[in-house]
Amino acid sequence: GRLDGVLAVGGSGGTSVASRAVQALPVGVPKLLVSTMAAGDVGPYVGAVDVTLMYAVVDVAGINSLSAQVFGNATAAVAAMAREYAARRAEPAAEEHRPLVGLSMFGLTTPAVDEARAELDRLGYEALVFHATGAGGRTLEKLAADGRLVGVLDLTTTELADDLVGGVLSAGPHRLEAAGAAGIPQVVSLGALDMVNFGPRASVPAAFDGRTFVVHNPTVTLMRTTPAENAELGRRIGAKLAAARGPVTVFVPLRGVSGIDREGGPFRDEEADAALFGALREAVAGTSVELVEADAHLNDPGFARRAALRLHELVTAAR
Amino acid sequence: GRLDGVLAVGGSGGTSVASRAVQALPVGVPKLLVSTMAAGDVGPYVGAVDVTLMYAVVDVAGINSLSAQVFGNATAAVAAMAREYAARRAEPAAEEHRPLVGLSMFGLTTPAVDEARAELDRLGYEALVFHATGAGGRTLEKLAADGRLVGVLDLTTTELADDLVGGVLSAGPHRLEAAGAAGIPQVVSLGALDMVNFGPRASVPAAFDGRTFVVHNPTVTLMRTTPAENAELGRRIGAKLAAARGPVTVFVPLRGVSGIDREGGPFRDEEADAALFGALREAVAGTSVELVEADAHLNDPGFARRAALRLHELVTAAR
Repeated sequence: GRLDGVLAVGGSGGTSVASRAVQALPVGVPKLLVSTMAAGDVGPYVGAVDVTLMYAVVDVAGINSLSAQVFGNATAAVAAMAREYAARRAEPAAEEHRPLVGLSMFGLTTPAVDEARAELDRLGYEALVFHATGAGGRTLEKLAADGRLVGVLDLTTTELADDLVGGVLSAGPHRLEAAGAAGIPQVVSLGALDMVNFGPRASVPAAFDGRTFVVHNPTVTLMRTTPAENAELGRRIGAKLAAARGPVTVFVPLRGVSGIDREGGPFRDEEADAALFGALREAVAGTSVELVEADAHLNDPGFARRAALRLHELVTAAR
Repeated sequence: GRLDGVLAVGGSGGTSVASRAVQALPVGVPKLLVSTMAAGDVGPYVGAVDVTLMYAVVDVAGINSLSAQVFGNATAAVAAMAREYAARRAEPAAEEHRPLVGLSMFGLTTPAVDEARAELDRLGYEALVFHATGAGGRTLEKLAADGRLVGVLDLTTTELADDLVGGVLSAGPHRLEAAGAAGIPQVVSLGALDMVNFGPRASVPAAFDGRTFVVHNPTVTLMRTTPAENAELGRRIGAKLAAARGPVTVFVPLRGVSGIDREGGPFRDEEADAALFGALREAVAGTSVELVEADAHLNDPGFARRAALRLHELVTAAR
């Protein structure tokens, strides 16, 4: 069949139903939901694709002077996106098709990811960078599972900390499994595993009182992971990678894993980092996972470039 | 100045900044944010207006084969919405201008709100219905404060329960104050004050184990309020209304306040309802607030129609 765009309008029930349907469509097909629920947690409605949510402001039953404006904008938008999509689809696919590599990033691992992206670009890959927001990690996993990627450079595995401790940016317990299951070459690091994410400071559950926090901005609060949590993360990551069917190299940055976990930073905690590294070392000992320990910080020049080069070697050897 | 639409593209920081700017614009002006943060809690980004959020899927730095599609859709959408908005603005305002009344609703108070809406329509008003999602209540308050409404029929004051207990649909502590401060006539009821809202069942904080829950749908879980919480809500509502500068009537539905708090329903709790009604009675005793107690359920035929008629009397007398 042919489908150039979807528009759905609803309250809580309608949005729940429509979102299931549009999440099955590929990225690029316009999907616009006008919803009374679009001013809260939209995670379940968006999933891993480009769902667009317009807040309905007023109830969606009937037309009034406010909803006429909102619905007018929505219909104009979806019609234009559908025309745009149809035009893109009709274009001869003349552009170059470079092999795709997936990367994971965070604000606090950006220097590393920028360097890796430049290196991958130089090596002839197209680098797709996913924000480790839960949805980003799920999208990366989905593209790997779908066989769209020739390699994964998973520098920022922080979503596993939110899954373990209960932060708001979890990508679920199966993060870091799809590439391994699909046999896709991966180079993995430990970016931002020093933190769990919450919303505004006041929204952090009282159970975490006494922990170390950094208020990143008015809507994002970061909490330092403990040595015990980091050890468990090391074990989990090691077990996931040991189960991979493709080649895996782990790069361990011995001087810190995020912009605020370096010497002098507010999340600097050598005991916690050592627990992470030690548990990981133990979990991959005797397996086919290659471990590269570097006397460097994750964001230090050269660290991510080496990781990108190693991925290129794995991808080339796998061909 | 002239502004027909806004498009902003960003990560966590950029979205935080851009959302502040667009929240200051009136409903109807197109506001599209393409954001890596649009797959989580977007409440702080949307506020009380028609902000549209498109999930960026991949990082917003640079163009790749995925982001080209997302950004292509976004630019097409905002251009079309801006043309639509400019065309609407250029139209002579020929349509009738009926006086606006704001209503508050919830799925579980819909029968009452539908009846009230029909009655208000018959009486010559345009009824704007706001979902009590936190953002909906804030929008209702904002329109009242801006002097856009001739009256408020606040049948569904449930957001105050989320504010008190810590649910996900709070409209903040100042809900139910704007109409009173502006001297606008109000008729108020106690819709859905038997419940606090959470997301998926697994997301409910452990502190509430042992309470009564109803799983409304996969993304919405309802928790029964206790007699102590209901008494506090009665006190708060009474104090807010007693401070109003305009006329206020409260309609008390003695047989239950939501679709699941009626005889035989899972949230039926006569002790909790009695605590709510008793505390409210006490709080408005000796004030100018009119109290109407009805031996009826909120959703019973006739209850909301009487409330709408009373509002019409207050509005007419205030002219």
